[in-house]
Amino acid sequence: MRTVGIFDSGVGGLTVVRAVRDRLPGAAIHYLGDTARVPYGSKSPRTVERYSLACLRFLLEREVDLVLVACNTASANALDALSAATPTPVIGAVLPGARAAVAASQTGRIGVLGTLSTVRSRAYESAIAELSPAAAVAGLACPLLVPLAEEGWTDGEIAEQICHRYLVELFAADPDIDTLVLGCTHYPLLADTISRVAADIAGRPIAAVDSASTMADEAAALGPTEGDGRLRCYVTDATRLDELGARFLGSAIDEVELVDL
Amino acid sequence: MRTVGIFDSGVGGLTVVRAVRDRLPGAAIHYLGDTARVPYGSKSPRTVERYSLACLRFLLEREVDLVLVACNTASANALDALSAATPTPVIGAVLPGARAAVAASQTGRIGVLGTLSTVRSRAYESAIAELSPAAAVAGLACPLLVPLAEEGWTDGEIAEQICHRYLVELFAADPDIDTLVLGCTHYPLLADTISRVAADIAGRPIAAVDSASTMADEAAALGPTEGDGRLRCYVTDATRLDELGARFLGSAIDEVELVDL
Repeated sequence: MRTVGIFDSGVGGLTVVRAVRDRLPGAAIHYLGDTARVPYGSKSPRTVERYSLACLRFLLEREVDLVLVACNTASANALDALSAATPTPVIGAVLPGARAAVAASQTGRIGVLGTLSTVRSRAYESAIAELSPAAAVAGLACPLLVPLAEEGWTDGEIAEQICHRYLVELFAADPDIDTLVLGCTHYPLLADTISRVAADIAGRPIAAVDSASTMADEAAALGPTEGDGRLRCYVTDATRLDELGARFLGSAIDEVELVDL
Repeated sequence: MRTVGIFDSGVGGLTVVRAVRDRLPGAAIHYLGDTARVPYGSKSPRTVERYSLACLRFLLEREVDLVLVACNTASANALDALSAATPTPVIGAVLPGARAAVAASQTGRIGVLGTLSTVRSRAYESAIAELSPAAAVAGLACPLLVPLAEEGWTDGEIAEQICHRYLVELFAADPDIDTLVLGCTHYPLLADTISRVAADIAGRPIAAVDSASTMADEAAALGPTEGDGRLRCYVTDATRLDELGARFLGSAIDEVELVDL
């Protein structure tokens, strides 16, 4: 395996790029952020599937050996269609996130925070039920968390109050949750605040897991990588990429190309 | 004039539909919300212009006599291109909003709250400078206000703190502001909170104006309307329309068609 394609609705998927580079430093990566049509999370399943297939086609034209769907919304709503469209392996975000949650949970009571579209799809419920039939899952859509992460307001009173409002609602649905899935690429930036506020509400430590490192593990399991280690980024719209990209990738982005899908 | 076309990036423009129906009850209205590609406010001018032209073409095919661009972002970035593309009159949101602000301000110090793309365009600055060369304008992008309005969290502590954080920054830029332009179709839902928080910061009353009623006045000035008073809505994606639409229109939406652009 030489080349990994990764796509997301925007720049959040750079958290997955970061995990893949840590785990597979030799892999050449083509990253596509559909920044013209971001966010997917408020769109219908039909529209998410259509846009996701366009992203897949773009990466396949770059002859990638593997596609990672960093976007939870696309994974939750379009993974079957994506896998059916190509013989190239396609790894979504939901099953790895579900695996991480099941591994972390002692009680089997798991909370999923995500976009409206991810939560409505009940994809995490299905994936967790397959892995651990006794587990119980409560999901909650948190539309304010993406702009909060993009503003960089990841701690402080506003972040805490917004997380508190959402998490009070989630723990009201199931007070015995011991593990949260951060089911959107933006949420890991808020992980500390989410964990702290959840622990305050629950009165005990709450684990918070996301898909990125488990996705990188699954990619690594497909075989050794022998690429040139280069990261090429493509976006469908150029706005705010420098500022946001570095926040999610953890370092500056060198190669970016503006493309039409 | 029989038929008015109105478009917006999403459902927020229904606040303009509401004003037009109040002012021109006879007008037949075709409303297009580009809900598949919402929001425009975080996209680049080039992309906003491309999407706006597609919306315009769609409405012209419905043989409208007038087009209102409810979306501030589209008005700020694409009005020249839209006007050049058709002999049908096109009214944007920026100039009416600027007129309302200049009329309301005593000090000529005006603050503009908008999306990233509207604020970067400096369109309100240009429009206000033409109307009142001595006026001074300070703009601020407020990305959290749209999801806040869509969640319905329009008052209470979270809304106040978010508005406070943005408005402290705006009044730091110009402490003598006496009028705020709510430069996004979503913000009128937060008008009470914004006015109250701004008055607290400034220590005096602050006027808050938006484009909707002035746009309706400008449409009325083009002549009497003799349509069938019917409202037809079109969206590019069906998600959340019932819930959000009623919030912005102030009543339920009867006729909605899902369309591709």
